[in-house]
Amino acid sequence: MDTASFVTSLLTSFVIFVVLVLVFTWLSSRPGNAPVYYPSVLLRGLDPWEGRGRGTRSPVGWLRQAISASEGDVVAAGGVDAAVYLVFLSSVLSILVFSGIVLLPVLLPVAATDDNLNLERAIGLKNGKTPQNFTELEKLALGNVQEHSRRLWAFLLSVYWVSFVTYFVLWKSYKHVSNMRAAARSTPDVKPEEFAVLVRDVPKPPPDQTIKDSVDSYFRALHPDTFYRSMVVTDHTKADKIYQEIEGHKQKIARAEVVYAESKTTGKPEGTKPTHRIGFLGLIGKKVDTIEYCNDQIKELLPKLEAEQKTTLREKQQQAAIVFFNRRSAAASASQTLHAQMFDKWTVEQAPEPRQIIWSNLSKKIYERQIRQVVVYTIVFLTVVFYMIPITAISALTTLEKLREKLPFLKVVVDQPKIKTVLQAYLPQLALIVFLSLLPSLLMFLSKLEGIPSQGHTVRAAAGKYFYFIVFNVFLGVTISSTLFSALTTIINNPPGIVNMLASSLPGSATFFLTFVALKFFVGYGLELSRLVPLIIFHLKRKYLCKTEDEVRAAWAPGDLGYNTRVPNDMLIVTIVLCYSVIAPLIIPFGVAYFALGWIIAKNQVLRVYVPSYESNGRMWPHMHTRIIAALLIYQITMVGVILLKKFLYSPVLVPLIPISFIFAYICHMRFYPAFAKTPLEVVQHNVKDTPNMDAVYTSYIPACLKPEKLEDVDIFEDAQSHTTSRAPSI
Amino acid sequence: MDTASFVTSLLTSFVIFVVLVLVFTWLSSRPGNAPVYYPSVLLRGLDPWEGRGRGTRSPVGWLRQAISASEGDVVAAGGVDAAVYLVFLSSVLSILVFSGIVLLPVLLPVAATDDNLNLERAIGLKNGKTPQNFTELEKLALGNVQEHSRRLWAFLLSVYWVSFVTYFVLWKSYKHVSNMRAAARSTPDVKPEEFAVLVRDVPKPPPDQTIKDSVDSYFRALHPDTFYRSMVVTDHTKADKIYQEIEGHKQKIARAEVVYAESKTTGKPEGTKPTHRIGFLGLIGKKVDTIEYCNDQIKELLPKLEAEQKTTLREKQQQAAIVFFNRRSAAASASQTLHAQMFDKWTVEQAPEPRQIIWSNLSKKIYERQIRQVVVYTIVFLTVVFYMIPITAISALTTLEKLREKLPFLKVVVDQPKIKTVLQAYLPQLALIVFLSLLPSLLMFLSKLEGIPSQGHTVRAAAGKYFYFIVFNVFLGVTISSTLFSALTTIINNPPGIVNMLASSLPGSATFFLTFVALKFFVGYGLELSRLVPLIIFHLKRKYLCKTEDEVRAAWAPGDLGYNTRVPNDMLIVTIVLCYSVIAPLIIPFGVAYFALGWIIAKNQVLRVYVPSYESNGRMWPHMHTRIIAALLIYQITMVGVILLKKFLYSPVLVPLIPISFIFAYICHMRFYPAFAKTPLEVVQHNVKDTPNMDAVYTSYIPACLKPEKLEDVDIFEDAQSHTTSRAPSI
Repeated sequence: MDTASFVTSLLTSFVIFVVLVLVFTWLSSRPGNAPVYYPSVLLRGLDPWEGRGRGTRSPVGWLRQAISASEGDVVAAGGVDAAVYLVFLSSVLSILVFSGIVLLPVLLPVAATDDNLNLERAIGLKNGKTPQNFTELEKLALGNVQEHSRRLWAFLLSVYWVSFVTYFVLWKSYKHVSNMRAAARSTPDVKPEEFAVLVRDVPKPPPDQTIKDSVDSYFRALHPDTFYRSMVVTDHTKADKIYQEIEGHKQKIARAEVVYAESKTTGKPEGTKPTHRIGFLGLIGKKVDTIEYCNDQIKELLPKLEAEQKTTLREKQQQAAIVFFNRRSAAASASQTLHAQMFDKWTVEQAPEPRQIIWSNLSKKIYERQIRQVVVYTIVFLTVVFYMIPITAISALTTLEKLREKLPFLKVVVDQPKIKTVLQAYLPQLALIVFLSLLPSLLMFLSKLEGIPSQGHTVRAAAGKYFYFIVFNVFLGVTISSTLFSALTTIINNPPGIVNMLASSLPGSATFFLTFVALKFFVGYGLELSRLVPLIIFHLKRKYLCKTEDEVRAAWAPGDLGYNTRVPNDMLIVTIVLCYSVIAPLIIPFGVAYFALGWIIAKNQVLRVYVPSYESNGRMWPHMHTRIIAALLIYQITMVGVILLKKFLYSPVLVPLIPISFIFAYICHMRFYPAFAKTPLEVVQHNVKDTPNMDAVYTSYIPACLKPEKLEDVDIFEDAQSHTTSRAPSI
Repeated sequence: MDTASFVTSLLTSFVIFVVLVLVFTWLSSRPGNAPVYYPSVLLRGLDPWEGRGRGTRSPVGWLRQAISASEGDVVAAGGVDAAVYLVFLSSVLSILVFSGIVLLPVLLPVAATDDNLNLERAIGLKNGKTPQNFTELEKLALGNVQEHSRRLWAFLLSVYWVSFVTYFVLWKSYKHVSNMRAAARSTPDVKPEEFAVLVRDVPKPPPDQTIKDSVDSYFRALHPDTFYRSMVVTDHTKADKIYQEIEGHKQKIARAEVVYAESKTTGKPEGTKPTHRIGFLGLIGKKVDTIEYCNDQIKELLPKLEAEQKTTLREKQQQAAIVFFNRRSAAASASQTLHAQMFDKWTVEQAPEPRQIIWSNLSKKIYERQIRQVVVYTIVFLTVVFYMIPITAISALTTLEKLREKLPFLKVVVDQPKIKTVLQAYLPQLALIVFLSLLPSLLMFLSKLEGIPSQGHTVRAAAGKYFYFIVFNVFLGVTISSTLFSALTTIINNPPGIVNMLASSLPGSATFFLTFVALKFFVGYGLELSRLVPLIIFHLKRKYLCKTEDEVRAAWAPGDLGYNTRVPNDMLIVTIVLCYSVIAPLIIPFGVAYFALGWIIAKNQVLRVYVPSYESNGRMWPHMHTRIIAALLIYQITMVGVILLKKFLYSPVLVPLIPISFIFAYICHMRFYPAFAKTPLEVVQHNVKDTPNMDAVYTSYIPACLKPEKLEDVDIFEDAQSHTTSRAPSI
């Protein structure tokens, strides 16, 4: 890619970004769009424009608000997880800013004043080779420094500077997040999950006991003073199906009533009763009066549901339970204590939040979980390796010349010089981005199959897998232009060989990644901020589909941040920018722009748009931390290779950085991680002010489809699991 | 080594063994030797000959008793640790017996009926090489099977058989030991360590608090219902020195009084008062009356000790403490629960038994411990690698011909054919055995430096290090006759290369190791059983040195089994026998003899001789289990190489065994290990029958030199740590 197309690409991206920001500024100030631009604010029952002074509607009002919002505001609006994500963005930003402050003024002049590229070209010409063109950009990079040159010391020391800046910032951030987590967990609010423990691998009870009875007697014996109650996990898929059917009918009735009421006003005072067909997709079958039909259906289903609830509670008990304690510290302590002599029985862990429990996974046994994990990771490994084939095919196709040959009808478009430049700048990157959007749902699905009990953990597991994929395929795949297979054989036969491979091919892809980062942040963030897609969907739905209030609300329901794709994508940029920070320091400003814009826009979206679907109190941080260090390690290892390739004697000076990174990771893990994996007693010692309403805590864990009509019936619910069946041991 | 010298070596060993057993039978039946042969029985206050019927003094009486003693007897006499050691010996024995039952009848005929050695010799002769002699023994081994031969299938399947036998036996044994541990821990006896938790990394308290106060308030807040008391660890080296001095004087007085009383009877009714010189070693200086002088010294030292006790308690508090709970389950739960948000503060773990605490290590901080561990393991690594130099030198020297050249005066001895054969059989092995006896104390010292809080853990750590040493240096060192350096460079440059190296050199050393094992069990166990050295020392001491009862008791104090050398030595035999089990199946009977004799003799010694110095409830088992699997892995890997060298196409059939071993190790670790690392609540739920005497529990942890005169003064002791100083916050 030459300098012209690079600049074109940049400019186009920038123009798109500016347009999108203007569109956002204009659209978001129109009250009708509030549910799209302020859903989180609306859901918290606030007025989006309330309490804000002059200038709220000014073009930069949102910017000022996003910057001025404190961490407390963020936690209040989006929970600790969102705040931790912002800490992640700002940490990377600080790493890049600190690095850039030193690297840009030092390395750019050092590189620009050398002459390696011209020399190589001259040598090439002398030997009769076709001269390789180089761009002005490349003159500012490591490639322009001659071999053996003492200028390489500057690059070598820069690697040290970047590494130590990273250690420093990460240490600070880990400490900060750790305190944030502790603060969030020691609030006096009653959170049900803090009083509960998840028990899995409950052994089969003797024939005269239900599982519920054996759980009760076991935990009552071990925790005589603090045990409150237990709830055995049941297989309620059938009950849930009936429940969903009833809910569906209820929605239909509500919708039909609105339609009926609307039809009344228009001339006909009696109105038209809405009807529908009961056959396939409402297209065939008997025509029925919707309201009447649905009411009948509900009447029919309700006793069914009740009967199913009873059999579920009695006979579909699974070998897992949630056990409640009457004190937070008791639950915290119980969740960390080994209960049974054999570890494959009575395994305990912290209970997940009720809203993020994956019920179907709770009853999976310990060995099944292990096997599932192995199988899933094998599948992921195969996916990571074999996705390479289509990627290679695409990058072969997307060379514009080849495209032109293969699809001659495109000639008219392609041959116009301006369009050509744009296409040349974008096509490979677009192919990559489109391609990547296919994967996350598969990975979420696979992670769920592992038997993980909570949504939050699944998201972390999926994010981890996506990170592997993205680093191996996008970063390594694009860099090492040969197929990954040959790379893999290199790795297996001669592990250090991969360093050379990376080192020799990394500098060549610098411009590609510069454009890639720019495209990501200008277009990606522009779309994110302007929310054009949700806006259009919302307006279409409201106009043509939604009848009831509930339906409208569902149309603008904002969802959460989607960490499972967001974090790995950011991590890819971290990896790219770190790896090129010394090879082509020009990438640092792009990285800074990416994370600065990312931070502002994410903050805005957290404050106004997204609603967290679970709260893990920053459990994601250790995951991010480890992966930043992994990126740093990739960087350090490749730099040893890159500087070695310049035939610089002192490049082994970089080697100590690698053990230092491992030691740093180990110390962080040792010092901070336990408080993320477990609940420190110190944190839960602040007792809840009022006596907690333990009934409410218990009820919050009852799945919707099993919930009794009145809250007072909790005892009946519990009895249904235990005494009813234990009364009949004669079977 | 030819067959003649091999048989000679075996016969000599056997004769020595028989003589030693006869000596033991004769000596042990003489009442005067009871303190040497029955110290454990005497210490438990039993009569060695009581309650035993006819035949007790018969030559095989001890044998019958050892075999008939139940596991309960063993636990009663030597604790769970001794019983677990016997389980280890019997497990290995079963592995070898089960393997031998199949391997010997199958492999010996298969090997003996082939003709590879003769063929190779013929080819060698044809090519003009000097013919290599081979022994009858070698005809019974893998070496006699021809390349490509289908007979190799028998050897290949044998590896599978041995592996699965090992898995089966190990699984059974782990289960058995796990239950034994659980049973031992759920007895209703009050064991102080079950009510206590060791707290390390106590943060610096605010200036107006002592460490004791801050520990108290911290644990009282977190465990309001179950906290009983705390004892802050103090630096009592100085107090201990004074205390030891007083004890020394007391001993001298006791001894002098006996001497004085003896002198009275002999004619002179007033007797001679014993005197000694107070200068260097009692050789120079003023002559003083011992009894008077020592009494004066004690009078002088007692107030000093008291003052030092006070300052120790008040001012030498360390940042570690032992915290007591009033219930076993509370202590178990607290020891497993994370207390502080930052893991480098308030780290808790199970308290060690009072008698095995290493006080000086308790106050070492978490980072210091980590660094010490790294340094110690570096030293151990260097030791393991560089001890090779002297070993190589020795094996070069011990070739008899070279010895004769270098030390010509030995000619007279060496040239006699019988002596020559014996020497040739023993010299290299003796050199090795003598050499190895130097190491254990160094390793114990190094392990203590790591900052481990308990004696039992130190022994395990030292045993682990010794295992590395012994396997790398003795097993690999002898096998790969080249220096270990070249082996190391092979490992680094080309890890799979080591397999080839081992595979090609292993068969050559078979006879050496056969003799080695035989020597170990005949001579080693003979000496162990007959206790000749302790017997001689005891009689000499009693005759010439001991005056008081206490001194006599000290002269026969039996000590414990010394797991730190015993276990790695057995593990070396396990490794050797496993690795040769298929290459030279004749080694299996030797292994069976080693572990059968070992089991009998160890059982006898546990029942009658050794007194455990600590009780870890079988904590050593996971350590042994892992190392048996490690030996199995070495075996499997070398077998892949060995059979590959026979140019056998199907040798990769063995490769799946390696992952299977890892999976087996992982599953065992997951299922059984937690109950060894932590205390399961299930096990301690059986509450102690009577209310435990918590004062006694507390007192048992007070170091001897700080113990108050009367037990009732416990409160004063505690107050000395706390209020005295907290009363003076104005400093």
